Amino acid sequence: MNSFKTRRTIRKYSDREVSNELLNEILATAMRAPTCGNMQLYSVVVTRSEEGKKTLAPAHFNQPMVTQAPVVLTVCADFNRFTRWCSLRNADAGYDNFISLVSAVADASIYAQQIVAIAEQQGLGTCYLGTVAYNAPQVADVLGLPSLVVPVACITLGWPESEGEETERLPLEAIVHEEKYREDSDERILELFAEKEAFPANIGYVRENGKENLAQVFTDVRYTRQANEHFSGIALDYLRKAGFLK
Amino acid sequence: MNSFKTRRTIRKYSDREVSNELLNEILATAMRAPTCGNMQLYSVVVTRSEEGKKTLAPAHFNQPMVTQAPVVLTVCADFNRFTRWCSLRNADAGYDNFISLVSAVADASIYAQQIVAIAEQQGLGTCYLGTVAYNAPQVADVLGLPSLVVPVACITLGWPESEGEETERLPLEAIVHEEKYREDSDERILELFAEKEAFPANIGYVRENGKENLAQVFTDVRYTRQANEHFSGIALDYLRKAGFLK
Repeated sequence: MNSFKTRRTIRKYSDREVSNELLNEILATAMRAPTCGNMQLYSVVVTRSEEGKKTLAPAHFNQPMVTQAPVVLTVCADFNRFTRWCSLRNADAGYDNFISLVSAVADASIYAQQIVAIAEQQGLGTCYLGTVAYNAPQVADVLGLPSLVVPVACITLGWPESEGEETERLPLEAIVHEEKYREDSDERILELFAEKEAFPANIGYVRENGKENLAQVFTDVRYTRQANEHFSGIALDYLRKAGFLK
Repeated sequence: MNSFKTRRTIRKYSDREVSNELLNEILATAMRAPTCGNMQLYSVVVTRSEEGKKTLAPAHFNQPMVTQAPVVLTVCADFNRFTRWCSLRNADAGYDNFISLVSAVADASIYAQQIVAIAEQQGLGTCYLGTVAYNAPQVADVLGLPSLVVPVACITLGWPESEGEETERLPLEAIVHEEKYREDSDERILELFAEKEAFPANIGYVRENGKENLAQVFTDVRYTRQANEHFSGIALDYLRKAGFLK
């Protein structure tokens, strides 16, 4: 269990190559992860070329990991392949709807995290790019995704240049509920977040951003209502165009 | 990498207890998995009591694993806890929208699969219940989930009673795309599914269900258009009620 305990997100990668042989072994091994009805409703687009990474970078707000990492993986929810197979077999594939999207997103997420878990046990470093949710239409455009294929997780991968930074976590009691969801009192909520608020890096963020507290760094700077509502509209519109909301 | 290669889904569990100590160590260790902006937008409800499992079972179409497994975990996307913290800190939490749901579902999915990966390396067996997507409103009701908390993954957990069944997978070439998504020809699609169609258990399903081929078992029996459209409506209505589509 120790490697899972000590894992850290890695944003800087060394020049050491990630061989195709190793990458394919990881991608093939991760396929043994659970999948909905064994339909394997996922695909992965591997970006390795300098040109490909440069073209993809703007869709990730030019975060430096995209061009610096030797490998960028875009794991997609994919009902296109399965639907085409059904059509070729005279079977009526009714997968252009929301619940099918949910199944495919679950499959893609499980596959993505299994890739990360396996890669990290091999000593590789990884970083998820949350930007894939915000800029899904641009990612889809760059990678040429057809209907019923939407990007779910983008992962940069490479050998670590240095140790990642240690980050804090909430206490386990904040996360775990016995038998029923327990609605904590206001006092208890503040207790559960106390360690997070006292974490030195977080105190730094509050100061740098001129905010009263850490919560305001999230709501006013990092994940604002305005941006969330803007990107929600884009995401729903994109999913409609991708064919999943008929 | 070997344990990831040989893993199998386990649907039958022995009487051996899963101690609270081991379970909590797994749940705490999995918290080191990546999370969006380190917000940890997930919770897990642990169902262990006979009564709790019996009450939950109908929401999973009474699949026997629910009452037979010593532990049932329902991993939820949770923006409730974070939103309450923000409100207590005079911060305007704008997380009642679709893109925030997407972030929380990603967090919950990654956490769920990390739990599974860790548990399996300890020798435990697990099984995801896809029914959580279809019957989310019932699951939420039984577990008492408040607004901005929705169930994402349900996992049964216990020591294996017997080895799981071997299942087939598509060839790696079906899943992996180099630089751009490659739209395969019809002939190639059929080649990629050939091994799956020839898998003995699948040939059995075609015969048992009186269908022409395996694709029709999926479209006419297991995941029908009619059921998908029915459950899509329920899911979208539920997400609106849960406060994520404002």
